[in-house]
Amino acid sequence: MESELTKMDLYEAIYSRRDVRRFLPEPIADDVLSRILNAAHHAGSVGFMQPWNFIVIRSMDVRQQVHELFTRENARAAENYAGGRRELYNSLKLAGILEAPISLAVTCDRGRTGPAVLGRNSMPEMDLYSTCCAIQNLWLAARSEGIGVGWVSILDPAQVKPLLGIPDEIVLVAWLCLGIPVQFDERPMLETVGWEKRVPLQDVVYSERWQERWTADSTK
Amino acid sequence: MESELTKMDLYEAIYSRRDVRRFLPEPIADDVLSRILNAAHHAGSVGFMQPWNFIVIRSMDVRQQVHELFTRENARAAENYAGGRRELYNSLKLAGILEAPISLAVTCDRGRTGPAVLGRNSMPEMDLYSTCCAIQNLWLAARSEGIGVGWVSILDPAQVKPLLGIPDEIVLVAWLCLGIPVQFDERPMLETVGWEKRVPLQDVVYSERWQERWTADSTK
Repeated sequence: MESELTKMDLYEAIYSRRDVRRFLPEPIADDVLSRILNAAHHAGSVGFMQPWNFIVIRSMDVRQQVHELFTRENARAAENYAGGRRELYNSLKLAGILEAPISLAVTCDRGRTGPAVLGRNSMPEMDLYSTCCAIQNLWLAARSEGIGVGWVSILDPAQVKPLLGIPDEIVLVAWLCLGIPVQFDERPMLETVGWEKRVPLQDVVYSERWQERWTADSTK
Repeated sequence: MESELTKMDLYEAIYSRRDVRRFLPEPIADDVLSRILNAAHHAGSVGFMQPWNFIVIRSMDVRQQVHELFTRENARAAENYAGGRRELYNSLKLAGILEAPISLAVTCDRGRTGPAVLGRNSMPEMDLYSTCCAIQNLWLAARSEGIGVGWVSILDPAQVKPLLGIPDEIVLVAWLCLGIPVQFDERPMLETVGWEKRVPLQDVVYSERWQERWTADSTK
């Protein structure tokens, strides 16, 4: 945080953050990586549990193995689509595991602070949710540092965990690719190619009850 | 985003964000609320699914009912502790549902874009994770606007959903309280009162494999 170069307005980071799949081969500087990881670690967590771990992976051998698992899962996922939709699906680049210099496995240790966790008694999933909040911090911090992040969810965690020696009881929440992007696209790739449309804000916000229309006025 | 007043450096927002439970009665301006919600809506989502909804709740009647559900769940949670730990637990203010002018229910519609979702085939939980990323965007945007957010997880979603008419198949991910905070604390409250300690960053980061020590050097 010492340099002016790493300062970015929060809203600018939020609106220009992208899921990145095309990376340049340049490495990520140590101080940059440390700042990004520290930002993740400063997310809130249920009961101040800090249930996350981050495994920094540079090994090409491991990335190659994970890339192969991705390729298999991706072929399986393509079977969900037919005709033009399948063609479009198959044309999309959905991961950059081999290109990005760093892969980051993000895990959640659900037993970290013992069985009783403040705030997790009624909603046991809160530790997983906290870990996702840490990932969003990481994603935004990376953006502000000019680093692209891609979340590879076309992976079966049960197949990936043994490659890293992750114990059964630890949840693999995310496989992230980090690197300098070829570019930060103006819009999400799935919007650009017409896979899904951006929903207007007013369609996802309700007032007082489910499906009751919200307008700026109705919030007074 | 038009005003300079709403600009905050990303890292400043990340490090000064707190889970807030003490609020002033002042309302939140409409334009501020809209910016916060729009920031949430611009999180990434698996398959560009945008599975979230945000229900803006001002009704004191509903908040009173949810506060009663919280009180009951909190008493149940207190039974996890004994002796001094229980005394400490009972002394903590864990929600500000009645004080905060706005409660926000955040939901996830897992069927929004049909059964097949790009990127969710191998990890079906990705839509819930996306919703949490949206919540972290919201939390940071609120911080940059001087608005405090408290995540009330001491609630049973099955008891809360009927109060808002939320259908069975929709997941209630979070109940958030929003308002102007009495203050943003320097440190997390659970750290200040000695409930849990902040873990050093190097203890949560591994290199290449589970539990292999990471140092700035080992990441070269």
